[in-house]
Amino acid sequence: MSTMKPPDETQGPAEDTRSDTSPALTRRGLLARTGATLATGALLMHGRAAQAQSAVPGAKAPRAGRDSGSVVVPNGAKLPWKNVGGVKVFHLVAEEVEHEFAPGLKATCWGYNGHVHGPTIEVVEGDRVRFYVTNKLPAATTVHWHGVLVPSGMDGVGGLNQKAIAPGETYRYEFTVRQSGTCMYHSHHDEMTQMALGMVGLFIIHPRKPVGPRVDRDFAIMLHEWRIDPGTRRPDPNEMTDFNVLTMNAKAFPGTEPLVVQKGERVRIRFGNLSAMDHHPIHLHGFQFRITETDGGRIPESAQLPETTVLVPTGSTRTIEFVADEPGDWAMHCHMTHHVMNQMGHDLPNMVGVKPAGLDAKVRPLLPGYMTMGQTGMGDMAGMHHMPMPANSIPMVGGKGPYDDITMGGMFTLLKVRDRLDGEGAPGWYTPPPGTQARLAQVDELRRDGIDV
Amino acid sequence: MSTMKPPDETQGPAEDTRSDTSPALTRRGLLARTGATLATGALLMHGRAAQAQSAVPGAKAPRAGRDSGSVVVPNGAKLPWKNVGGVKVFHLVAEEVEHEFAPGLKATCWGYNGHVHGPTIEVVEGDRVRFYVTNKLPAATTVHWHGVLVPSGMDGVGGLNQKAIAPGETYRYEFTVRQSGTCMYHSHHDEMTQMALGMVGLFIIHPRKPVGPRVDRDFAIMLHEWRIDPGTRRPDPNEMTDFNVLTMNAKAFPGTEPLVVQKGERVRIRFGNLSAMDHHPIHLHGFQFRITETDGGRIPESAQLPETTVLVPTGSTRTIEFVADEPGDWAMHCHMTHHVMNQMGHDLPNMVGVKPAGLDAKVRPLLPGYMTMGQTGMGDMAGMHHMPMPANSIPMVGGKGPYDDITMGGMFTLLKVRDRLDGEGAPGWYTPPPGTQARLAQVDELRRDGIDV
Amino acid sequence: MSTMKPPDETQGPAEDTRSDTSPALTRRGLLARTGATLATGALLMHGRAAQAQSAVPGAKAPRAGRDSGSVVVPNGAKLPWKNVGGVKVFHLVAEEVEHEFAPGLKATCWGYNGHVHGPTIEVVEGDRVRFYVTNKLPAATTVHWHGVLVPSGMDGVGGLNQKAIAPGETYRYEFTVRQSGTCMYHSHHDEMTQMALGMVGLFIIHPRKPVGPRVDRDFAIMLHEWRIDPGTRRPDPNEMTDFNVLTMNAKAFPGTEPLVVQKGERVRIRFGNLSAMDHHPIHLHGFQFRITETDGGRIPESAQLPETTVLVPTGSTRTIEFVADEPGDWAMHCHMTHHVMNQMGHDLPNMVGVKPAGLDAKVRPLLPGYMTMGQTGMGDMAGMHHMPMPANSIPMVGGKGPYDDITMGGMFTLLKVRDRLDGEGAPGWYTPPPGTQARLAQVDELRRDGIDV
Repeated sequence: MSTMKPPDETQGPAEDTRSDTSPALTRRGLLARTGATLATGALLMHGRAAQAQSAVPGAKAPRAGRDSGSVVVPNGAKLPWKNVGGVKVFHLVAEEVEHEFAPGLKATCWGYNGHVHGPTIEVVEGDRVRFYVTNKLPAATTVHWHGVLVPSGMDGVGGLNQKAIAPGETYRYEFTVRQSGTCMYHSHHDEMTQMALGMVGLFIIHPRKPVGPRVDRDFAIMLHEWRIDPGTRRPDPNEMTDFNVLTMNAKAFPGTEPLVVQKGERVRIRFGNLSAMDHHPIHLHGFQFRITETDGGRIPESAQLPETTVLVPTGSTRTIEFVADEPGDWAMHCHMTHHVMNQMGHDLPNMVGVKPAGLDAKVRPLLPGYMTMGQTGMGDMAGMHHMPMPANSIPMVGGKGPYDDITMGGMFTLLKVRDRLDGEGAPGWYTPPPGTQARLAQVDELRRDGIDV
Repeated sequence: MSTMKPPDETQGPAEDTRSDTSPALTRRGLLARTGATLATGALLMHGRAAQAQSAVPGAKAPRAGRDSGSVVVPNGAKLPWKNVGGVKVFHLVAEEVEHEFAPGLKATCWGYNGHVHGPTIEVVEGDRVRFYVTNKLPAATTVHWHGVLVPSGMDGVGGLNQKAIAPGETYRYEFTVRQSGTCMYHSHHDEMTQMALGMVGLFIIHPRKPVGPRVDRDFAIMLHEWRIDPGTRRPDPNEMTDFNVLTMNAKAFPGTEPLVVQKGERVRIRFGNLSAMDHHPIHLHGFQFRITETDGGRIPESAQLPETTVLVPTGSTRTIEFVADEPGDWAMHCHMTHHVMNQMGHDLPNMVGVKPAGLDAKVRPLLPGYMTMGQTGMGDMAGMHHMPMPANSIPMVGGKGPYDDITMGGMFTLLKVRDRLDGEGAPGWYTPPPGTQARLAQVDELRRDGIDV
Repeated sequence: MSTMKPPDETQGPAEDTRSDTSPALTRRGLLARTGATLATGALLMHGRAAQAQSAVPGAKAPRAGRDSGSVVVPNGAKLPWKNVGGVKVFHLVAEEVEHEFAPGLKATCWGYNGHVHGPTIEVVEGDRVRFYVTNKLPAATTVHWHGVLVPSGMDGVGGLNQKAIAPGETYRYEFTVRQSGTCMYHSHHDEMTQMALGMVGLFIIHPRKPVGPRVDRDFAIMLHEWRIDPGTRRPDPNEMTDFNVLTMNAKAFPGTEPLVVQKGERVRIRFGNLSAMDHHPIHLHGFQFRITETDGGRIPESAQLPETTVLVPTGSTRTIEFVADEPGDWAMHCHMTHHVMNQMGHDLPNMVGVKPAGLDAKVRPLLPGYMTMGQTGMGDMAGMHHMPMPANSIPMVGGKGPYDDITMGGMFTLLKVRDRLDGEGAPGWYTPPPGTQARLAQVDELRRDGIDV
């Protein structure tokens, strides 16, 4: 495995090696005052990439701009760096990774630094950056800095801008970052294979001077789609249209970590999409937001659209911002309905309305445990996580909810907004105040309102 | 069947029980002066939902803002309500519905109040609303108010925000509407099944104070996609990519009711899309329009895009506005070409350019009536509505036009603009004035213009 | 074959018959001063359409606004016209066309005037235009002027606005152009067949008075998608979801002609999309651009989005503008990964990670030349253009690059930006200045930077 040794020369500012949750980095506005050699999202330097923001699912994220200005990547990691002579030096290692999409489903993917997707890169406008890219894959690869304004020779299209990086080789990219915004990086050699296997990541550039209203929370989510047939161990890059594992930061619900914020905070969520084929419409419940950014930069306020669903075309990023003024547990998900379910919902016959009558009893002597399913839809599939499943597969839908199983899967997560955040981990389920909860109608109110059921 | 009895207590303002074509509701600006308890889209209260705007296809719609301010839903219905102590009370009944998509094609769907899709809900910003939802389906369900700002406990995600409504149960939702715009409602429990079977509807909220230029006509259309194999009686919710029945307000052309307006009027069309997978690009012939609204609210004038095709991502609404300054019969349709055709165009071999020679004669002894089709495309399929068809299916394309069969199907309808609207029903076919009609070229003009054909 | 004779009456201004590269048309601002009868994109009149801009791939395009104001259509043609009594007269001939998509892949398509797609129409706001449309196809057809504001009788929907043009007939359309922008034309009779076979084209309207910043280069590209199975000679219009030939101006990479501009110039690229089903996200490397236009007209500056990827919904146009301030060879392509590959990548099994061991040796006695492929992805496929291929097919990926084969295909082209354009043809490969090129890392710099590979 690749490691980054302490540099022989300048170590960079002391802050460079502090964790982004370091109590020393708590002053507001630090971001605006930092320069090219002072880390905004200062990160621990260790063997591989920095760990996911928290081992506790949905942990309280550091406040952006308050604690460290850094972006929170649910379920994700960030790429560490060190300061060498005023240059931020990163090391990306392309390699095979055993990745768990959700409890019960693992696959052998291609990623970076032991992660799928690659760790998020976080820099500041004006930074001089140097990337070493080591190829530990069995195939040649490159890195393209999607949306980042670089010299032509650093653009990473294999054959066009450079020779592809052969297995075992380490290439060097270096450029000055002359913009801010939400960009991405990915393989641009045999990209239909390598991106389908996971070789994508986010590249976030903070502005040197503040742009737009200050946000309190700043999240980043990469959308992706995969074909992993039950029982197989490799994503299939040759799938053209029907993807069966849909992910946010490479996790399918119920494997996704919730986003946690405090009521009244201004929240930013950055979405990247490097899916093979689909433009994902991400719907946030409970709030109206503005679309404030694309991978082409900040959208002028005059052009910002109000939305509750943001369409993120593949090969694009979209950033949304809103004030979380309503407490609750809010769903956030792709609104393509087959993107909020998992593998086992594919390739099924239509059983709606079928009356099995004595069929099950007749089939069971031949197929013990056989049960006709789907006559009234797939809601019961949510219970399948309590049942035996094929090896290395996850049910079509189902995660634990406060009232019952949630009949969703795939590209689905939660935004938890609380009046006050206490403790370390994510808050438990939200308890609606009296009178704000859907419930069984009472006989007297039906009578009063003249409803004949 | 569910019924709404006259309420025992207050009946609400007299206007509440008037039809939205009532001559008493003709004053301009009524909308701006109404309050939470005075209906804008005042509706007849009767057994099920209000009937479609007209039994006559393409009937002259009431003028918005002039007659009643109410939205027109071609082929659709509206959900009635009554005033109980200042609260607008609605009753949604989830149930199986036999639905006709176009003459010749019926299927057993899931909808609300005897309708597919559910009747359109129409309220005013600031209204207090109460929804009783009775579940007459064989499966549990919920209702999510898509885009509507509600308390977390009213948001309707099964398992997360509430326990799902079991068959036979009636649930109660109640909240105050604190926004205006075009939203939607749909099942959010086993949603991939239930939405695919039809459980979606529009939720339109008029602003309390006028927003933007006053419109004369205000239409609403829900886009949807289905897989109904010829000969089957149930939509297949397990179809992933290839949908074969494409609808506007649950009707496929030639089953769609045209939109009718008078020349010079300002027209608003609200599109909702809760299709399983597709973002539909709706192209309007003859006009440039502005996109004025999403489910996130009114788009500021500075950000409104001029378009002739509006992309409506699934899980979104888009509203367009324009002045109908050109008379005619104008096509309006999805621009995905397989979305303007019907079932019978799917799963066909490519016959273009094939020369059947004596094939037909040889096959007919085995298959009486056999005829090779498609050698020059599918234009002839439009004539198939004059031919025998498989049971419960509709031809690939074809509706009656003034000049010949129109070789379109599916998500296709007409906007009829006339200098003057007379009578009750929709106007007949448009007659272009002299010199404004494509026609056979004359020999003398070909000679004059030097065209050698 | 159809020809346009010299007109019997007025010949129109002398400029009308000059080539758009004519040295006589070199004055800046000509466009703004021209009227309805003075050609902006003045074109040679000859038998069929004007030839592609250059026989030399990637030839130096004429400067827009400087030389002639005319649009450049890479790989494409323009429709000639002549002035008859103040009317611009065009002749479109719908006919079968043998078309080459890329070296090695030809198909029998349907197009106009010997071209697939149809030649680009270029007029000026205010022009009176007359189109004769001769149908030499075996099926009826019509022409719809997509986005162009025309009288209802000229709108071209078969059966609705006119009788379809029967084989052998010539129809006449005539109208005054009362807008500016980027529109399109296509068959609107059996459109799912006829557009899938290629019957689409661009319809560009220059404003009479300048709109927005003057551009130096003005390109136009039509996006399209096809299904052509290896070994067949006809595109399959019945393909619903999985297209395997993806094109810009009907060429698949490596058949696409690059766009060539000089550093510092303001560049406009107009994209049209009449693909059957897909909304293509076109990503431009190296630059941030603004989206300035749809088929509904110019986007006000306040509403223009910054982007590096423009989503072009099908049935839409999108125009982008930017200053080419960075020299280099820049990729521009659809970001759907299966749209940057060609036929042979479809219908393949997943071989990633498979270890063939002695398999090849065992299979070769049965299948001489057999070689297991794809164990490490498809990068090697780029080399297949050096290998034997099935008749009439092209490799999945692969075009010549300066460093190696480029592992891309389909909807992919290059933007070449040079400090100075010399000579006639396209410039060769770009040579990055020292220090701006990704390269192998050196041992000493790895040591200095503390990178352990």
